[in-house]
Amino acid sequence: MFRRILAAVDGSTHAMVALEKAVEFQRLTGAELYLLCVYKHHSLFEASLSMVRSKEPPIPDQALSEHARDVVEYAKEHATQLGASGVRGFVKGGKPSKTIVKFAKQHDVDLIVVGSRGSDSDRDGMVLGSVSQRVASMAKCPTLVV
Amino acid sequence: MFRRILAAVDGSTHAMVALEKAVEFQRLTGAELYLLCVYKHHSLFEASLSMVRSKEPPIPDQALSEHARDVVEYAKEHATQLGASGVRGFVKGGKPSKTIVKFAKQHDVDLIVVGSRGSDSDRDGMVLGSVSQRVASMAKCPTLVV
Repeated sequence: MFRRILAAVDGSTHAMVALEKAVEFQRLTGAELYLLCVYKHHSLFEASLSMVRSKEPPIPDQALSEHARDVVEYAKEHATQLGASGVRGFVKGGKPSKTIVKFAKQHDVDLIVVGSRGSDSDRDGMVLGSVSQRVASMAKCPTLVV
Repeated sequence: MFRRILAAVDGSTHAMVALEKAVEFQRLTGAELYLLCVYKHHSLFEASLSMVRSKEPPIPDQALSEHARDVVEYAKEHATQLGASGVRGFVKGGKPSKTIVKFAKQHDVDLIVVGSRGSDSDRDGMVLGSVSQRVASMAKCPTLVV
């Protein structure tokens, strides 16, 4: 039914709940489980400013990339503790929704699992996070919104 | 993992594709599969007009309800042909997203399956149907957008 499941993680509580559901699917189907954390690229304007800055603190892209790596590592450990096997972690820079959908297509993903709200969504809980909404809209495969 | 799956059907192609995915989940988990078609209530204004109309053609609510019943029956047959068991059909009148979410809550549904676009969504394929978006946003259980 599913050969490859992609869970998007961003360090938010919703993403962790989504990850747990993705693990249940992985265990049920024996699919591979890919975890992806997307960090937003520093804007070109900001990047140009960073050229005249000192090396410390690190340029935002690098710091964001490292944070994303930590998020994926934590998620990977958590998934493994929950009994998932065949777990692989990935970090990409770009616009989250677009990058998730592109990654899913490139890696023949059958199911994308996303939290209903991400780390930067509305806090009132009434509006679907823009990332999950866009992913569900653009993806060629089914999207599970948790 | 899932004890009760709810697939929303509205006669659209997307809803049928979603139904097929719901059947796969049903077969995988042995859950009950509920099919729900929601028809929009005739507005009160229109309803008041219909009081002075003849009995033929039937009042819109009745016609819509009968159409919804046909949609559910067709979906039920299709699901059964695909090997689903424990399938039950339901028809409700009301606002689709709100009614689906309320029904899911009342019937302890674990997973809602909806088509990414319904019968009255944008045809350009770029915008997530408002029903699937609202359901994914409001539901207390995971929503699979197909």
